[in-house]
Amino acid sequence: MKYREQTIETLKKELKIEKDIYDTVLKEGINIDISRGKPCSEQLDLSNELLTILKDCALPTGPADVRNYGGLQGVLPMREIFADLLGVKVSQVMAGDNSSLNMMYDSVQRCMQFGVMGSTPWNKLEKVKFICPSPGYDRHFTVTSAFGIELITVPMDNEGPIMDVIESLVKSDDSIKGIWCVPKYSNPTGVTYSDAVVDRLASMECAASDFRIFWDNAYAVHDLYEDSTPLKNIYDSCDNAGNPNRVYMFTSTSKITLPGAGVACFASSDANIKDVLEIIKYQTIGPNKVNQFAHAQFLGNADGVRAIMKKHADIIRPKFQAILNVLEDEFGGSDIASWSKPLGGYFISYDVMNGCAKRVYELCKNAGLVITTVGDTFPYGRDDKDSNIRIAPTFTNTNELDKACKILVCSTKIACIEKIMADK
Amino acid sequence: MKYREQTIETLKKELKIEKDIYDTVLKEGINIDISRGKPCSEQLDLSNELLTILKDCALPTGPADVRNYGGLQGVLPMREIFADLLGVKVSQVMAGDNSSLNMMYDSVQRCMQFGVMGSTPWNKLEKVKFICPSPGYDRHFTVTSAFGIELITVPMDNEGPIMDVIESLVKSDDSIKGIWCVPKYSNPTGVTYSDAVVDRLASMECAASDFRIFWDNAYAVHDLYEDSTPLKNIYDSCDNAGNPNRVYMFTSTSKITLPGAGVACFASSDANIKDVLEIIKYQTIGPNKVNQFAHAQFLGNADGVRAIMKKHADIIRPKFQAILNVLEDEFGGSDIASWSKPLGGYFISYDVMNGCAKRVYELCKNAGLVITTVGDTFPYGRDDKDSNIRIAPTFTNTNELDKACKILVCSTKIACIEKIMADK
Repeated sequence: MKYREQTIETLKKELKIEKDIYDTVLKEGINIDISRGKPCSEQLDLSNELLTILKDCALPTGPADVRNYGGLQGVLPMREIFADLLGVKVSQVMAGDNSSLNMMYDSVQRCMQFGVMGSTPWNKLEKVKFICPSPGYDRHFTVTSAFGIELITVPMDNEGPIMDVIESLVKSDDSIKGIWCVPKYSNPTGVTYSDAVVDRLASMECAASDFRIFWDNAYAVHDLYEDSTPLKNIYDSCDNAGNPNRVYMFTSTSKITLPGAGVACFASSDANIKDVLEIIKYQTIGPNKVNQFAHAQFLGNADGVRAIMKKHADIIRPKFQAILNVLEDEFGGSDIASWSKPLGGYFISYDVMNGCAKRVYELCKNAGLVITTVGDTFPYGRDDKDSNIRIAPTFTNTNELDKACKILVCSTKIACIEKIMADK
Repeated sequence: MKYREQTIETLKKELKIEKDIYDTVLKEGINIDISRGKPCSEQLDLSNELLTILKDCALPTGPADVRNYGGLQGVLPMREIFADLLGVKVSQVMAGDNSSLNMMYDSVQRCMQFGVMGSTPWNKLEKVKFICPSPGYDRHFTVTSAFGIELITVPMDNEGPIMDVIESLVKSDDSIKGIWCVPKYSNPTGVTYSDAVVDRLASMECAASDFRIFWDNAYAVHDLYEDSTPLKNIYDSCDNAGNPNRVYMFTSTSKITLPGAGVACFASSDANIKDVLEIIKYQTIGPNKVNQFAHAQFLGNADGVRAIMKKHADIIRPKFQAILNVLEDEFGGSDIASWSKPLGGYFISYDVMNGCAKRVYELCKNAGLVITTVGDTFPYGRDDKDSNIRIAPTFTNTNELDKACKILVCSTKIACIEKIMADK
């Protein structure tokens, strides 16, 4: 239905119908959370073998004993798996503890405190800015804003961030020191950066010589369907463009094995790794190597990773499809909602009529459905259009998801119809 | 033998004997490392059950599922064990990943970047200083010097650091922001701080309101003998003195279970924990909770910790005694060497005649025995007396330890006799 073309009379009738549905839902005492990209129990069970895999393994002995101190860069077999997945050399990979967010935060903090390869520590500069393609990942934005870094919102299209805007910004402003990217199955839009976007990021002229791309490849192998959407290797692009040190790459096994006990990864040029280790050597004697070793045993190699990812996809794909089907049924051809149709990752990006997202959020919340706080997908929590809602379908079971959809749909209709009526 | 009282003739004879021994040793092609406080394989084996303990455990389900995201402060049963060991409330405990050094580094970094409970970030002050009781732990000193913090050396006696000196320093100088302490079985001297020292640290007047004691209780339960040396609860002392927020406490299971895969702990007042979580929430979604849960299952409770520590002691006590016996046999009543007789911890602090430690180090190194770099036990790697050597007996097996002692003894004698002869 094109709601904006309807008479007040029709809208009133529609509103009444939706409010009745809403009132019925209210009485059900629902409590569902689709706000965060969390795997469900069934997904976690795919890695239960990991928890006891060391019972049959011979642990390395002597200096390589993973139970003892040492090994700042992580355990070799786990680094080899990451190197293979990311298309870099093993020497370029650091395997860490369970949180790639922690590695990203620490990377920003190191730049603030110590600079990059001998550059002025960012703390000592009057102004530091980061480019934030949006909608994007809230935790990226809050890391940089915690350090007082100014966030510059740059819109996304279906090839990635708008490169004309970015190129013009970084060329002239040396206080722009970095950009946050989720290049594959982007959070929340599901977009995978095109080859052209990757190449332009790698080769663009930057006023700041210590500009770094924070390349959070969180969904590197997180395909929902048989065919994987290819992502160009940005390290190679940077290297070819004569900017081998431009990119800090991150990934983790959080959504491959266990979010609460996975292995995170930082990968970059040998020179960047050296620069970073020079500081990290003061911070720790080494990450949890037993967990890394267990992971390497469990996953085997990059193909082992891809195999388990197919099992994840089989569990979560129906959840995505259930929501997409409802949205298509309810809003296909309508003028009040549009949404992404992701081929991977963890989110559906759902845009309602401008000025209505906060109201939808409130209505959902009051009915017991928690969705990501509206605005969180933008720097400073500010969605100027008040339009974007992030839906995370994975954690919830199918039965709950039906209810969640029901609430989301009638909340959307109520909010939008009210807005249209008020505007008339 | 009182070497300094001998004639040149006797010294020459002694030197010849020791050099012959040294030459014999040289031919053996020895390669032994007693430089770091690392548990030996036999100690690590005590925790092998930990690696597979989850096979028989029911994991918590629902929101408390340790496999999934969340739980910034760590897993409750592990926090309870730490709380019991440290004598604080569970709310005051954060359980982390495997490295307490990492928690200490991050704590210093947070103070530098964000200040303490709203105080001026230390980065913005012209000067920040830390008190470093010495000899002490090299990694503490390098953390603070990495941040450009000035290190003030304060000597130790057998009750802990010299409090008269410290009280006078912190009272008048508000750029002194902290002190590093290893209060029990101190690294390397083995000293446990007396009740008076604990109380004076807790109650002393500090010019800096954001002064923090970095209380690295790394050897909290690491007794070598049946009787544990008691350490007064510094949090209670601080609280009683009206300075409840003065102390940041750290400990870990690195030398209880596995250094490469243990659980570290930060404990402090509720107000400090709140202050710290306000920043850490940007840094990570949570530590490795599966590892924490496995630890809690394996250790059971504080008594379980004490039980495993007795087994550690049984393995390493003979190593300490072997070295102490040799030192007593060779240097008892001599005027060229003295040493600590620790009741716990991981080190023997060995002092040779002033001006001889570096030469002893060189001689040992050339004969294939690696000891801690001379100077490392002091700020900036500077042992002005060139006297202190740290011995770490645990990692090596008894057979190797005999050889290590032989090298250490003849190297000491050669270095000191040469020095005495040169001085005459």
